[in-house]
Amino acid sequence: MLALPAFAQGTLVLQSDFGLRDGAVASMKGVATGVDPALRIHDLTHEIAPFDIWEAAYRLRQVTPYWPRGTVFVSVVDPGVGTARLGVVARTARGQLLVTPDNGTLTFIAADVAEVREIDLTKHTLPGSERSHTFHGRDVFAYLGARLASGQVRFEDVGPTRGTTIVRLEVTPPRREGAKVQGIVAMIDRPYGNVWTNLPAAMIDSAGFRVGDTLVVRITDGRREVFAGPVPYVESFGHVAPGATVAYLNSLLDLAIAVNQGSFADSHHVRSGPAWMVSVSRGRPRAP
Amino acid sequence: MLALPAFAQGTLVLQSDFGLRDGAVASMKGVATGVDPALRIHDLTHEIAPFDIWEAAYRLRQVTPYWPRGTVFVSVVDPGVGTARLGVVARTARGQLLVTPDNGTLTFIAADVAEVREIDLTKHTLPGSERSHTFHGRDVFAYLGARLASGQVRFEDVGPTRGTTIVRLEVTPPRREGAKVQGIVAMIDRPYGNVWTNLPAAMIDSAGFRVGDTLVVRITDGRREVFAGPVPYVESFGHVAPGATVAYLNSLLDLAIAVNQGSFADSHHVRSGPAWMVSVSRGRPRAP
Amino acid sequence: MLALPAFAQGTLVLQSDFGLRDGAVASMKGVATGVDPALRIHDLTHEIAPFDIWEAAYRLRQVTPYWPRGTVFVSVVDPGVGTARLGVVARTARGQLLVTPDNGTLTFIAADVAEVREIDLTKHTLPGSERSHTFHGRDVFAYLGARLASGQVRFEDVGPTRGTTIVRLEVTPPRREGAKVQGIVAMIDRPYGNVWTNLPAAMIDSAGFRVGDTLVVRITDGRREVFAGPVPYVESFGHVAPGATVAYLNSLLDLAIAVNQGSFADSHHVRSGPAWMVSVSRGRPRAP
Repeated sequence: MLALPAFAQGTLVLQSDFGLRDGAVASMKGVATGVDPALRIHDLTHEIAPFDIWEAAYRLRQVTPYWPRGTVFVSVVDPGVGTARLGVVARTARGQLLVTPDNGTLTFIAADVAEVREIDLTKHTLPGSERSHTFHGRDVFAYLGARLASGQVRFEDVGPTRGTTIVRLEVTPPRREGAKVQGIVAMIDRPYGNVWTNLPAAMIDSAGFRVGDTLVVRITDGRREVFAGPVPYVESFGHVAPGATVAYLNSLLDLAIAVNQGSFADSHHVRSGPAWMVSVSRGRPRAP
Repeated sequence: MLALPAFAQGTLVLQSDFGLRDGAVASMKGVATGVDPALRIHDLTHEIAPFDIWEAAYRLRQVTPYWPRGTVFVSVVDPGVGTARLGVVARTARGQLLVTPDNGTLTFIAADVAEVREIDLTKHTLPGSERSHTFHGRDVFAYLGARLASGQVRFEDVGPTRGTTIVRLEVTPPRREGAKVQGIVAMIDRPYGNVWTNLPAAMIDSAGFRVGDTLVVRITDGRREVFAGPVPYVESFGHVAPGATVAYLNSLLDLAIAVNQGSFADSHHVRSGPAWMVSVSRGRPRAP
Repeated sequence: MLALPAFAQGTLVLQSDFGLRDGAVASMKGVATGVDPALRIHDLTHEIAPFDIWEAAYRLRQVTPYWPRGTVFVSVVDPGVGTARLGVVARTARGQLLVTPDNGTLTFIAADVAEVREIDLTKHTLPGSERSHTFHGRDVFAYLGARLASGQVRFEDVGPTRGTTIVRLEVTPPRREGAKVQGIVAMIDRPYGNVWTNLPAAMIDSAGFRVGDTLVVRITDGRREVFAGPVPYVESFGHVAPGATVAYLNSLLDLAIAVNQGSFADSHHVRSGPAWMVSVSRGRPRAP
């Protein structure tokens, strides 16, 4: 586990599915700069596939552990903007704040959420934006995120507490049966096309798999098998020849499958999501 | 109307059609950092379609209202680089500066321009760049923009004043005849594919259209009709089922047409520009 | 030659082939912010083609001259991550530091490298990342780059010196024979599709070519000719009609070939690399 001691007040990190082609992200940054020109504003990504809450949730899990305490994240993938879906701010055990519509975006960091507050829109809407109903990213989330990051608003002043109640996407947790583990394809690692599972290192370890083993990997799309075969378990893909398939622990310390300098996902037409199952067992016993 | 009171000295916002794949934008930021390492440098977008002055002009209109007074914008979509087209700095009533080739980029914020000065290239060219004639973005505009943002150069020292004379793109203003309004498709809102018109909320209001009405929308490409039909006027697309078509006020408070969680522009092959006409009337009287 | 006097401590510039779609770059920035929240973190580009060391090397040459002394660059295009390839920090005569795997990335700025030190991984790996072997960009290069930029680690403490020994890509230097010069297509300038050679202004000058001349340009892909013809040598493409082909000195002061407001590379199927040869001679004598 990482231990980053620093506390970074004034740090705002933005995520959305707006892309970088138009002025949406720059409008959010303008609002944040208007709140406090000294804020350090960073991008997580704005290339989330349109409306893909799963991906937004996964990116928060990937990235938040590497930012210091005090960081305020604003994540806006918001197909329900303008409806009754709630806007919330989550405070995590790690000491960070996340400002987002409560639509599943917090799924993959749910275990880290210490308290959630519903955003009181009467207090936390950009003055002058009353007739705009389709861009809470700018008019509510960036505005409030900036005020939280700059210390102008405290977490306690966001709105009423909801305890730790959040909307969660449906995800089957990974499981181990003896020396066999089963999980899902949680993400395709682009641009490389590596397949990232949700099988954590601790489960891989307890199944008895060791670097140097040959693993038998099977991937299905929920109906049919798209890949099955022996794959060497290595520390990193650089240990094999270009074009060879490997299993390894990725940068989140989950099991991943890749083709060295190629695209496993494209070669085998693998995508991600709860329907994409991965099972792994050991191919043959290690030499004693 | 927004009222952002802050004044942000040292804030530089860059726009171009350079893309983010190569080193052009980073060279501009390097020059600006060399002028003053304390500058806060942000991107509007660098994904303007190559040479698309219309889009660059629209983005400035979309974004500048959300940045504080004192912000310096540098916009470089410059098909005429190296020719006689002028480089200018515009000062706006909003208290911002825009550094750009004078090629139409200021069209959509023309009403806000208080004074324009022609850039004196003998004073405001990066030392050492004398033989470079194709990258005024780096050698002139970013260099001068950074010096203006840091306070090293005053607006009055840019060069000779031109009053409010600027080059403008040809745009037909929107108009209302009784309960019918007519405008253009000003922009396609990517990645979603929503159609943004230039019909402002005030004109929509004065035509008598109210949220809850059914509007009759007709779109032509200048020769033939590409869409005609009744469309509900709602606060935001989240109020209808996925796949349904809606009209709403977008984040610029102009009328927009969209398919909820779909792409209206792709479904009906709509593009933007002065030839793409939109007319809107009310479908049937409201119940009294 | 540029003379940028400023010294910018605390400036970190990141380059990679990670793209901006996922959380990789944001994880690097999180680590850097955790080291020192006051760092000014900029992107060179993260859109290097996957594993394309040539392009990464070229971008460093394009951009580093425009950043002040003291800037720390981190470049991570790293097909060999997890293997025996070395991580290094190069100090340049320009007073900048470059943190990178030593895999050819320093090729095009080799003449500027004053000293190279091998990174001592026992000292310069992010605490807690011991089981992660595939993301030195985050766990080593961004972490060390941030500590160098913030002054927490000195160049002398990086690890053992290697003098000026670096891995270099194979590149044929440009050459002149009388009034004929021969080089390669070093890069395609996207999004425009201009062809950038490695023929420097000094060589163009000494061959006797002057703006206003007609040059005879010939481009081969190593086997067959893809373009041959007379091309006017101008200051910038704006001097000719849209659609016309021109030769000019690009923003790096190398000879380039372009179609004004078109794509020379796409029209003639030109790509870049050591096999793509360009020869240039003068078409006809100037009038006396």
